Amino acid sequence: MGAISSEVLAELTAALPDGVVLTDPDGLDKYRWDRALDPAAEPPLAAVRAECTEHVQTTMRWATQHRIPVVPRGAGSGLSGGAGGIARGVVVSTERMREISVDPVTRIAVAQPGLFNAEVKKAAAEVGLWYPPDPSSFEICSIGGNVATNAGGLCCVKYGVTTDYVLGMQVVLADGRAIRLGGPRVKDVAGLSLTKLFVGSEGTLGIITEVTLRLMPAQPPAHTLVATFRDTRDATAAILKITSTMRPSMLEYMDNASINAVEDVMKMGLDRSAAAIVVAKSDAGDQREIDTLLDACHSNGCTECFHTDDETEGEMFVAARRAVIPSVERKGRLLLEDVGVPVPRLPDLVAGIEKIADDRQVVIALIAHAGDGNTHPLIVVDPSDPDCERRATLAFGEIMDLAIALGGTITGEHGVGRLKRPWLRDQVGDDVLDVTRAIKNALDPLGILNPGTILD
Amino acid sequence: MGAISSEVLAELTAALPDGVVLTDPDGLDKYRWDRALDPAAEPPLAAVRAECTEHVQTTMRWATQHRIPVVPRGAGSGLSGGAGGIARGVVVSTERMREISVDPVTRIAVAQPGLFNAEVKKAAAEVGLWYPPDPSSFEICSIGGNVATNAGGLCCVKYGVTTDYVLGMQVVLADGRAIRLGGPRVKDVAGLSLTKLFVGSEGTLGIITEVTLRLMPAQPPAHTLVATFRDTRDATAAILKITSTMRPSMLEYMDNASINAVEDVMKMGLDRSAAAIVVAKSDAGDQREIDTLLDACHSNGCTECFHTDDETEGEMFVAARRAVIPSVERKGRLLLEDVGVPVPRLPDLVAGIEKIADDRQVVIALIAHAGDGNTHPLIVVDPSDPDCERRATLAFGEIMDLAIALGGTITGEHGVGRLKRPWLRDQVGDDVLDVTRAIKNALDPLGILNPGTILD
Repeated sequence: MGAISSEVLAELTAALPDGVVLTDPDGLDKYRWDRALDPAAEPPLAAVRAECTEHVQTTMRWATQHRIPVVPRGAGSGLSGGAGGIARGVVVSTERMREISVDPVTRIAVAQPGLFNAEVKKAAAEVGLWYPPDPSSFEICSIGGNVATNAGGLCCVKYGVTTDYVLGMQVVLADGRAIRLGGPRVKDVAGLSLTKLFVGSEGTLGIITEVTLRLMPAQPPAHTLVATFRDTRDATAAILKITSTMRPSMLEYMDNASINAVEDVMKMGLDRSAAAIVVAKSDAGDQREIDTLLDACHSNGCTECFHTDDETEGEMFVAARRAVIPSVERKGRLLLEDVGVPVPRLPDLVAGIEKIADDRQVVIALIAHAGDGNTHPLIVVDPSDPDCERRATLAFGEIMDLAIALGGTITGEHGVGRLKRPWLRDQVGDDVLDVTRAIKNALDPLGILNPGTILD
Repeated sequence: MGAISSEVLAELTAALPDGVVLTDPDGLDKYRWDRALDPAAEPPLAAVRAECTEHVQTTMRWATQHRIPVVPRGAGSGLSGGAGGIARGVVVSTERMREISVDPVTRIAVAQPGLFNAEVKKAAAEVGLWYPPDPSSFEICSIGGNVATNAGGLCCVKYGVTTDYVLGMQVVLADGRAIRLGGPRVKDVAGLSLTKLFVGSEGTLGIITEVTLRLMPAQPPAHTLVATFRDTRDATAAILKITSTMRPSMLEYMDNASINAVEDVMKMGLDRSAAAIVVAKSDAGDQREIDTLLDACHSNGCTECFHTDDETEGEMFVAARRAVIPSVERKGRLLLEDVGVPVPRLPDLVAGIEKIADDRQVVIALIAHAGDGNTHPLIVVDPSDPDCERRATLAFGEIMDLAIALGGTITGEHGVGRLKRPWLRDQVGDDVLDVTRAIKNALDPLGILNPGTILD
């Protein structure tokens, strides 16, 4: 894949309608970065703002002919660097593909990839239905990106992740063929489960141009509980007590650094001295669940416990939890982790991360979707201090090593992208990587789809 | 793949403990047939009754070395012929691999493939948990087979299918390597979703030797409603009314031929003159759901409607529904269909199947997991009447053609196996078959894993 000539690029521009292909360097800066702000991201040669499946097909046929790398991109909110630009390649953005239709009898939505997650939720809500997956970034992340990364969120602890809601899709292959997989059927086992293979493939196997999503009836109103702890070990003990006795519809964790970062920005009156806050929800409409939540917190030394059945009041605390990443981002550049462990190992993971922060003398704010063992250690980097950068990078790897040692995963919901690729082998082993590469080569023999993401 | 010499078979026998490899022709008859009783099934050369993953690995290494086809087999309850014997190959049965452990904190079970589905449910229930997927054959089908076919059942309409509960697995590849995929984590997106690819792969990509299953809290008690209809169109109209307004935990359909077949055997006092019976359950603990069910049936002309919150009484009707296949089997050999359509097309599918039965002058008993559009037309073949056989075979294909024309699937939960393979292309198209074959070739380049199933 040598340097691309301007003639070759002109071919693409000519093959698509005016305004679809962007080559202006200023405009292209947007397509260089995703939210991971990977310093290795490069300005791409061009961005294709596809308006339909055919535009994606045209681009992939051209890319195959000229062996040009293509980076698929939704809203660019990815946190693993999987949508960062490549200097010798083009970005295919689905931001203009924003149609949706909802069928309330079949209880499905058929959506184009550029819609935000929040817009899918809204369209479902208009007919009394609910699309559960709820990444914290739901207002700014695209449904296409959600499917491509098998995104999670806060409700997963009870309601599962994106793949649990994907019944079908249209996807454009590396050679430009568009295929339809699955469809509006809860049950369909005709052939291999290709739909599920493409979910979470991070743009390395194809570009998703339409998804068929299973919807649920509207979520029942939830009761929210917020508990403050003096010691992180008490908080994780309370969490294990909860998960072993009931099924909360949300079970979130914020540590002291996270609390203070949010309080700096939002001034909500959170207890700045608390070691951790646990935010839990119950939507079963069963008083016993609320009693269980209260008991789990009180019997594990919580210092304060507040609960409410007022949805708006409850949402304030969830909003605080969602505000952690942008609030901590004000302290410096973030190295954002996404490690997960089997739930019983959560206390070991939290304690281990505290030790790494201490050993490496870096600030690590810790938030967690605690109920499913998925944590987001946010390592704060002072970009003006090269030694801080070095220590942060060491900590970044050590946290993934720790998660693997605890039987966990280097990424629970953000994807491997490019930033976590060096650790994937340590988690899954050589044989699984071989199988991964065999499938990648079978579907993208030229290696033009999002090279460097997941695999070398 | 020429004829296998007795020396080669002796190599396998010598490599495994006494009693693992069965070569006695009488004993092998069991491993020739699955429940589809495909006349094309052949007596295999040998059956390997593996006791652990290593036995499966030894067998696959030997099979790779000598290019010998291997048919993976769970309990042999498959309905698509995917576990039928191959004369030049061996069967690997997992019937002896029957361990299970349940972790109530993580809410998972780790099970070996030979356990029956009912045994997994029982182990979960012992700690107050629930494994939802419930094929009608749950007492005689293996969990390994359930995962290999992505089996469904009666509760799928609310609780989803097998893949929704598979978090991880150990699988032996064609070359004998054993890999671990996923694990006890609700969220894990490290690499391609290989776990989900192996679910439903019908033994064509590897042999599953352990599965990690997500469990749920015990199902709440359910209210059961049974409604009788004079016209199948009234019954399907009631079903659509139900699915568009609520989420039943079961929504089953039996036609007149099914009712009479069951009544012949069980003598329950079912109305032999009814065109259809609908059995619905609600487990939401909400009277409004029961009122919705009642209203949907009454406003669509049901002739009789009975409902109960007594679980035992309710289960009697579910047992009647589950008894349909064995009861109809007494009338002749069955060609068992598994076609599904998007729910709004269910009335068209039911009417179309009635027309095919009429046109071809064959008895077709129809049962359906109506709430998810998945039907089982049971075509009764009189094996002593070659013309009936011919007409039944025509009807078998025409029903799949009809499902495809209605935007549906040739198989909702049983798998393609060998019997439905000729129709797969019509449903998914050439490009999807190409992708399927590319993945198959990447993982099983010698084509030794369950040849003839899914692909030629």
